[in-house]
Amino acid sequence: MTKIVNFDSKKKLPLVSGKSISPLEIAYETYGELNADKSNVILICHALTGDQYVSGINPITKKPGWWDIIVGDNKPIDTLKYYVICSNVIGGCMGTTGPKSIDTKTKKPYALDFPIITIHDMVTCQVMLLDALGIDKVLSVIGGSMGGMQVLEWMASYPERINSAIPIATASFHSSQNIAFHEVGRQAIMADPNWYEGAYIQKKTVPEKGLSVARMAAHITYLSEVALQNKFGRNLQDRSKKTFSFDADFQVESYLRYQGSNFVSRFDANSYLYLTRAMDYFDLITENNGILANAFKKLNSSICIIAFSGDWLFPSIESRKIVHALNANGTDVSFIDIESDKGHDAFLLEEPDMFRTIDGFLKAQLNKIS
Amino acid sequence: MTKIVNFDSKKKLPLVSGKSISPLEIAYETYGELNADKSNVILICHALTGDQYVSGINPITKKPGWWDIIVGDNKPIDTLKYYVICSNVIGGCMGTTGPKSIDTKTKKPYALDFPIITIHDMVTCQVMLLDALGIDKVLSVIGGSMGGMQVLEWMASYPERINSAIPIATASFHSSQNIAFHEVGRQAIMADPNWYEGAYIQKKTVPEKGLSVARMAAHITYLSEVALQNKFGRNLQDRSKKTFSFDADFQVESYLRYQGSNFVSRFDANSYLYLTRAMDYFDLITENNGILANAFKKLNSSICIIAFSGDWLFPSIESRKIVHALNANGTDVSFIDIESDKGHDAFLLEEPDMFRTIDGFLKAQLNKIS
Repeated sequence: MTKIVNFDSKKKLPLVSGKSISPLEIAYETYGELNADKSNVILICHALTGDQYVSGINPITKKPGWWDIIVGDNKPIDTLKYYVICSNVIGGCMGTTGPKSIDTKTKKPYALDFPIITIHDMVTCQVMLLDALGIDKVLSVIGGSMGGMQVLEWMASYPERINSAIPIATASFHSSQNIAFHEVGRQAIMADPNWYEGAYIQKKTVPEKGLSVARMAAHITYLSEVALQNKFGRNLQDRSKKTFSFDADFQVESYLRYQGSNFVSRFDANSYLYLTRAMDYFDLITENNGILANAFKKLNSSICIIAFSGDWLFPSIESRKIVHALNANGTDVSFIDIESDKGHDAFLLEEPDMFRTIDGFLKAQLNKIS
Repeated sequence: MTKIVNFDSKKKLPLVSGKSISPLEIAYETYGELNADKSNVILICHALTGDQYVSGINPITKKPGWWDIIVGDNKPIDTLKYYVICSNVIGGCMGTTGPKSIDTKTKKPYALDFPIITIHDMVTCQVMLLDALGIDKVLSVIGGSMGGMQVLEWMASYPERINSAIPIATASFHSSQNIAFHEVGRQAIMADPNWYEGAYIQKKTVPEKGLSVARMAAHITYLSEVALQNKFGRNLQDRSKKTFSFDADFQVESYLRYQGSNFVSRFDANSYLYLTRAMDYFDLITENNGILANAFKKLNSSICIIAFSGDWLFPSIESRKIVHALNANGTDVSFIDIESDKGHDAFLLEEPDMFRTIDGFLKAQLNKIS
């Protein structure tokens, strides 16, 4: 059973849009033991379709948590040493207040009445959680992709509360092409008549087909062309020759259809709309009048930036721009651009260089403060 | 009014699948004058969403033809010199027999009873047209993208009927990633309840939303990330700040929505399914037991291959592989890899290097035979 912190109307979540959310529930998981001086906390920020179930078995899917490969006893993020916290983001669908939650004013699910949220709002929500848990400062905040955007936002907005940070496979703004792919996904969901302008829960239905198409389109962007070619090429699926039909003749078609239909069973369509929108709105450069270094003026933490050469969704050049901005401020930053043909998804996969980097960096942070 | 050639049941179109199509109508346009010895014919093959209206004003859209920039009097494909022919492909929706045509057996539109067609079948159809027009050999066959696949198929299957060929921005097989993007588009169309398993004409409706989403997803792949960033970046559309809503805040969103809705008014959803499938099935390598050079063993024509550096849908490395295959046979081939940040769509746009290359190559072919 996931842990929940409740905030009543005395403690609203203030949003960048000017609106607020109340009451607020934050669902989170912890792994390992908090030490006496609360100095061993690692906050992990999940990606677009991730959740708080980082390690061990995810109780919903019954599969290993999304980062079980790296978080656990004697793993790089070692739960024998660190106290790991991961909360479901605001706007999500795994227990934290989001568009499928009941709006206490109307007694119905929020649906599209849920306010638009931003990456900054996600981080504000995490700050409220840490406050509730009595944790002033974390040893490190870590995340990839949308999780990496949250890490950058921590560095920009709450630098005094982090000893260190590891933004992985991310960027300081969402590119035009990435906004375009998100817009296709949103339009696919909204095109589904079962979406009902967002009110599908009231209608006791699910915009399955639209959400599935959105996931399929996104999934292509998480892989590299090389990964797809190596994994599937033009191999046929369970047949020796083309059927001359619209069946999933090719393995890659079958794989994508599976990814689409599988996603529908674990994710909420409106959450998908809100979280993609939050990513689209992320832009530390424009918010700092075109000078990214200004975002990190107050930052006095150690930063380790990780990128992957085969990632075309968040190309490593974007990580380099962050390194340059930090260099301009004289921030303690290390950067590794890992050779990989696994595409954007590399941060979720067996990448020994990433494992060694995170392991070594975290040990150094622990040594520094002890 | 477009020209039409009719073939009755005595002259069926034989298909790679083993099926055939009859009766058959081929819609085509011509530009310029056929010379006395019929030696000045240039056959242009159109791309996925193209049509026979290459030059001048397209009578359907009232806009310039899709290659008006390059085909016309005193243009690189000079209609004062050459007799240009372009026919709508089999399976298309601009007059040539396709899924929206009436099946004489059922007296209803074919819809999904239309047989699956291949790039080879498109070329067979063009051969039937040339036969009907009494043209034995063309000076050149030219096309980009799916049109380039047809050009490669001409080189492989009917080498004796072409003096020269110009395949542009294409590949000898459709990659795993490209199949994946096509599958997303097909699933978007099929997810639309107005698609009715293909029978939407009978139901007097159109799967507009699905076709629009398919077009939006495809359109992203036609541009480069750089082109999108340069053209739109994160610019807002007709507003000074973010609306914190799902409106098309960003120009790129507004542009994509326009591309989607505009496409619906000019293209048939089932044709989109059939033509994308034909591209997915294209694979000159597997058909030649893994050795592309074998596809062109009988080829004795001059070939000019054009690729664009910013094209990630048909990367120039794929054109290089074709060059190597032709080199292995000692074929007369020239290759130009044009520096461009316009993405795959570069072949449809103002690209002076492409213009000069086509102009010079065609003049040389004309000199050779005269």
